[in-house]
Amino acid sequence: MERKEEEVAVVVENKQIIFKGYIEGIPTESDMELKLGNKFKLKVPSEEGEGGCNGALVVKNLYLSCDPYMRGRMRHFFGSYIPPFVPGSVIEGFGVSKVVDSDNPNFKPGDFVTGMTGWEEYSLIKKPEQLRKIQPNDIPLSYYVGLLGFTAYAGFHEVCAPKKGDYLFVSAASGAVGQLVGQLAKLHGCYVVGSAGTDQKVDLLKNKLGFDEAFNYKKETDLDAALKRFFPKGIDMYFDNVGGPMLDAALTNMRIHGRIAICGMVSEQSLSNPRGIYNVFNLISKRIRMQGFLQSDYLHMYPQFLEDVISYYKQGKIVYIEDMNEGLETAPAAFVGLYSGKNVDAPYLDVSKK
Amino acid sequence: MERKEEEVAVVVENKQIIFKGYIEGIPTESDMELKLGNKFKLKVPSEEGEGGCNGALVVKNLYLSCDPYMRGRMRHFFGSYIPPFVPGSVIEGFGVSKVVDSDNPNFKPGDFVTGMTGWEEYSLIKKPEQLRKIQPNDIPLSYYVGLLGFTAYAGFHEVCAPKKGDYLFVSAASGAVGQLVGQLAKLHGCYVVGSAGTDQKVDLLKNKLGFDEAFNYKKETDLDAALKRFFPKGIDMYFDNVGGPMLDAALTNMRIHGRIAICGMVSEQSLSNPRGIYNVFNLISKRIRMQGFLQSDYLHMYPQFLEDVISYYKQGKIVYIEDMNEGLETAPAAFVGLYSGKNVDAPYLDVSKK
Repeated sequence: MERKEEEVAVVVENKQIIFKGYIEGIPTESDMELKLGNKFKLKVPSEEGEGGCNGALVVKNLYLSCDPYMRGRMRHFFGSYIPPFVPGSVIEGFGVSKVVDSDNPNFKPGDFVTGMTGWEEYSLIKKPEQLRKIQPNDIPLSYYVGLLGFTAYAGFHEVCAPKKGDYLFVSAASGAVGQLVGQLAKLHGCYVVGSAGTDQKVDLLKNKLGFDEAFNYKKETDLDAALKRFFPKGIDMYFDNVGGPMLDAALTNMRIHGRIAICGMVSEQSLSNPRGIYNVFNLISKRIRMQGFLQSDYLHMYPQFLEDVISYYKQGKIVYIEDMNEGLETAPAAFVGLYSGKNVDAPYLDVSKK
Repeated sequence: MERKEEEVAVVVENKQIIFKGYIEGIPTESDMELKLGNKFKLKVPSEEGEGGCNGALVVKNLYLSCDPYMRGRMRHFFGSYIPPFVPGSVIEGFGVSKVVDSDNPNFKPGDFVTGMTGWEEYSLIKKPEQLRKIQPNDIPLSYYVGLLGFTAYAGFHEVCAPKKGDYLFVSAASGAVGQLVGQLAKLHGCYVVGSAGTDQKVDLLKNKLGFDEAFNYKKETDLDAALKRFFPKGIDMYFDNVGGPMLDAALTNMRIHGRIAICGMVSEQSLSNPRGIYNVFNLISKRIRMQGFLQSDYLHMYPQFLEDVISYYKQGKIVYIEDMNEGLETAPAAFVGLYSGKNVDAPYLDVSKK
């Protein structure tokens, strides 16, 4: 293909976070690498053909989300719903970006978009049809990194199938998903208890997010007993973000016709050699439905989600505790922190201030 | 209360199978005991008050079902959907009986009924409202011990949520539940593979029951590989009668949006110390629904079940392989055989020939 270069595009430096190679256990900072000094042209390349860029966008990334599911993409495993990262390439993730250049009639420079982008300052988006345009001024732009908010909304409404008065338990409750699940459940008239890994998070759940109760699971020697204390009548809905022993304890404490939404298993030390779940037999006697889900199966609900959640925010019925990390340099630590529980609630990277 | 005895009732001997005491592991014959020499009056006692018998029936038991769930009632555990057996008392179970005497306007001597009765020749039924009257001549009376047939029907239709062309796997496929699940799935246009524990059962599944494929799990060194061989495109519906390693292998081989009906866990050596299920994380990436159920939640479907299944039988679209054991004396061995897989498909006791 002939290469045309009719205009001189502005060339900038583009910091990136590079995925170094496949892992098995929990991620460490050394699995990622900050790469400096890349040249990046703020213009959609005009060449067509293989890997061509017809209809592409160049965006400036503003806010990037650190999400637990991303660990799954660090494994050398191709059977999942999303392929693994490519060693030596930039890490992909969900973010909020501003269009800088567009070869696509549906987007123009200055538009704000959310969707899959890269952990880098600027990205070339070859398939912008998977992005969503957003209108600023409704809620802070950074809130839109919470595509996970939609995970909470879809999982709570479609998998938990809540009824007013139901007892809800949510683990990793101060995380991006957990805090919204709990607040949606309160708005729905449910009794809500959350678990988290520090006293500070427990305080946040009870005093800022309006949970009925919360506990620090690291201070409990017997999770089964802890759940019995908070749910003497049992649990109707368990929104599981952690798997492992907490899932086992919840299985023992479910009520008849209980629902378990399986959203994440951050407690697993190794995805290749997972721990056993021992209390699955409870599914029979209590007729429990345990269901995994991905937000992408419920995209038809997204407009309703935005309308509801934006309205709740504006009315002050929902609060959102962010954990902002400034600059791409902070990305590896913020991501690794998801698994250590250290100072991380709903972490995202603010890369807007350049 | 005054005891009235206006007529001389016929008194007979009543053999019984007595539950000796609580167990933890798999049942053995010595956990039950044949008790002879009981006197039993073929007349509803007339006394009222505590334990009174107003509205009761006396029935002659004809066919009694040996069901895997009954092991759960041998445990000292009161948190289940059905209380444990009472040590020293007759074992309760599902059966087909003939009414001998009735103090209830809804039943008359000579009526045939199905429902919970005792492992004994004659039973006094104090709550006959839980029995169902049946019309003989439709299908053999012994077939009605298959309340489990309804378990298959309810689980297949309501939990598996079948679509034409779906791939179904059923374990313990030659059992009372499994054989009907597979045949209903074939009638629904599904591809059906079953597992069983002897070559004879495998032959039965393929050549008598019309399964597409079947395999002897005891001859497979790698259950995951076996399922990949029979389901190169994966499994849409797994009807699980065994739990344990087979459930783990199925979890690995499920397709996106697969459904797992959890019906029994006969493979568990000990219900108090169950083995772990290691592949639960597949629920997320494949959005699997795994659901336990009991037929009693679907009783509104029972008339439709009877109509469908009787019609299928009459048209020869469904066959039923029974494993009849004659006489109450054979009960302990038939029940224990459920867990060893020895010569037992859908065992029941014929106690009608006295």
